[in-house]
Amino acid sequence: MSLRDPSHQSQGFILTINGGSSSLKCSLFHVAPLLTPVLSCLVDRIGLPGGSMTLTDLAGGTSERRMLQLAHHKDCLEPLMAWLEQQIPRAELVAIGHRVVQGGPRYREPQRLTQEVMDELRRLSPYDPEHLPAEIELIEAFGQRYPTLLQVACFDTAFHRGMPRVARLLPIPRRYEASGVQRYGFHGLSYAYLMEELGRLAPHEAQGLVILAHLGNGASMAAVRAGQSIDTSMGFTPTSGLPMSTRSGDLDPGLVAYLSRTEGMTVEQFHTMVNRQSGLLGLSETSSDLRDLLASERHDPRAAEAVALFCYQAKKWIGAFAAALGGLDTLVFSGGIGEHSSVIRSRICEGLGFLGVVVDEAPNAADAGIISKEGCGVTVRVIHTDEESQIARSVRLLLDQEQ
Amino acid sequence: MSLRDPSHQSQGFILTINGGSSSLKCSLFHVAPLLTPVLSCLVDRIGLPGGSMTLTDLAGGTSERRMLQLAHHKDCLEPLMAWLEQQIPRAELVAIGHRVVQGGPRYREPQRLTQEVMDELRRLSPYDPEHLPAEIELIEAFGQRYPTLLQVACFDTAFHRGMPRVARLLPIPRRYEASGVQRYGFHGLSYAYLMEELGRLAPHEAQGLVILAHLGNGASMAAVRAGQSIDTSMGFTPTSGLPMSTRSGDLDPGLVAYLSRTEGMTVEQFHTMVNRQSGLLGLSETSSDLRDLLASERHDPRAAEAVALFCYQAKKWIGAFAAALGGLDTLVFSGGIGEHSSVIRSRICEGLGFLGVVVDEAPNAADAGIISKEGCGVTVRVIHTDEESQIARSVRLLLDQEQ
Repeated sequence: MSLRDPSHQSQGFILTINGGSSSLKCSLFHVAPLLTPVLSCLVDRIGLPGGSMTLTDLAGGTSERRMLQLAHHKDCLEPLMAWLEQQIPRAELVAIGHRVVQGGPRYREPQRLTQEVMDELRRLSPYDPEHLPAEIELIEAFGQRYPTLLQVACFDTAFHRGMPRVARLLPIPRRYEASGVQRYGFHGLSYAYLMEELGRLAPHEAQGLVILAHLGNGASMAAVRAGQSIDTSMGFTPTSGLPMSTRSGDLDPGLVAYLSRTEGMTVEQFHTMVNRQSGLLGLSETSSDLRDLLASERHDPRAAEAVALFCYQAKKWIGAFAAALGGLDTLVFSGGIGEHSSVIRSRICEGLGFLGVVVDEAPNAADAGIISKEGCGVTVRVIHTDEESQIARSVRLLLDQEQ
Repeated sequence: MSLRDPSHQSQGFILTINGGSSSLKCSLFHVAPLLTPVLSCLVDRIGLPGGSMTLTDLAGGTSERRMLQLAHHKDCLEPLMAWLEQQIPRAELVAIGHRVVQGGPRYREPQRLTQEVMDELRRLSPYDPEHLPAEIELIEAFGQRYPTLLQVACFDTAFHRGMPRVARLLPIPRRYEASGVQRYGFHGLSYAYLMEELGRLAPHEAQGLVILAHLGNGASMAAVRAGQSIDTSMGFTPTSGLPMSTRSGDLDPGLVAYLSRTEGMTVEQFHTMVNRQSGLLGLSETSSDLRDLLASERHDPRAAEAVALFCYQAKKWIGAFAAALGGLDTLVFSGGIGEHSSVIRSRICEGLGFLGVVVDEAPNAADAGIISKEGCGVTVRVIHTDEESQIARSVRLLLDQEQ
């Protein structure tokens, strides 16, 4: 059955937009009766050579890849919408939901993208110049093409907005907090999705002491008590917390002056180093991808050390968050690494038996839903995360509330 | 009995020198038969108005305070030695032991301050421009006055030199490690002393899984397994790790570019902020001293939040290091705060029952040697640290080895 088939009953479609630093992922969800993804589009290498656009018809199970050189995120709009309008009648698109990295101190709930909200996002742009300006441009481009269409911002910081002050405060002069410099935390759409899934799989666990580990190119963890985020590893920017594929995570702030004095490193060079040249790539000198490093660790000690550092620091964050929670009932692995790398999960959990974390290697090797040994105190789970579904759910909820 | 009394049997004296950022603590130890401190001298507010020099005769139990305005650490030498030479015959001074903050990648053991060692320290100066240059000046001044006297450097980094590579590596480009940028850790003289004390008090505990918490104006923790430091909170510089009286501890590296872009903050201003205007002082806006903040926390929420942040982050580091160790047998509190503030110890340990850490409030209120409830798994101890004794012991050991 085609989406354009007149017999096709529809309450319309929601388009979700999830932009990365050089990629854009869009999904089209059929609103009713169940929120179902029907089409998806991935644009990668935006602003880089060798870009492409992959269009997938999830209902039909077909996929098509086109080479496509785009300079900016907003340039995705034309080819994306041309394709989309071939698939569904324009009038059936009822809303667009955008993942927005930073909601600042004001926004906790998904927001209709009014002029006021757009002004606030522009004001927040310096908080995350790597992501926010491109997200704003894309929202504006959609707004110009479809002036009457509802657009909604879903914030990656929203999940953490209820954190206690002791977790939100940074140990710097207090005046910065008033100007919005505090721990926001990110990966909130993923965490919200994971907590909904956990609530569906094991409602009592979702009300307990939970650590969520979203481990992908960007990696962070959240400590969740009774469904509420009480702390998270990323702080004011997504550069902080755990070491990541190319980001350093938290760092000794004394390095800034040392590198400036000894090699004349500027602030911008430092920023590039901690965002693009550190973490796994910086230590291995070969790859930012954990799969590459696992493949080469036997003959390349640099790769082995990069992998070891990643697992060791992740283990320490689990200990830190267990202390923040006062114990641990459930540990959830998610994200590209968390969902697919049994060896990384196993190494992170090694030696955490004193917390009740014991991985059972057979289900772990199979990426099973539960990978812990029974009766060890902590249930260790692997849950596939889905930020697009979380955006679509948020938009539908907003639509329902406004009806 | 006077130290100058001819009936006084002596194998000579060791002078220890322990310089802080604006203070200098000197102690004179009688070498034999037991290494005993007999005189001490504290110079404070060096380079600041209202400086003083406090001279204490530990044997006689008398003390004398003189107002004394000194611009530099090396200016302490004249008044200190004039006083000292009144107390003991010059010939009886057999060695001077200096606390030196940073030994770099080369020095693990105490070193005779030869020309070669001095050259290396000068090369390491940029590692810690807050402390090393003043320490070098002081060593040079003593060397000029007493050219034949043995001077020994005891390094605050030495205790951690055996840490595994996974703890020494920083998540930045690998080339920096080769140039000496790695986790060194500090407070090593204090940690070495605490481990010797623990070995004396409870030899089996000293061979177990131990977290040492040195909490003073500077604060750090060390994870120790079978007597070996396996990790520590401070990294390349003493600005990192836990939030401290005026230092931030580890930070989101994304802040550097943000503060530069939004308010034109320079690298030097950032360095001043994270070293002198952050931590307890930065959050409370009133004092860097935890005693002041505890006194005002009931009516000043800023003070209450600064105290809460300090305790919360310390708790998280205990969790992180328990994870690094794979469990915990003994937790040792030391340093000005760790030894004297029962309320801080209690708040740090709150909620750590899942680790086996349970404070018994009666012995805790009395700053007793053991403050944990019996049978709870982890022995929580308060041990008075003594960096001067550790320096003197190291010097005597070097003298013994060379005889």
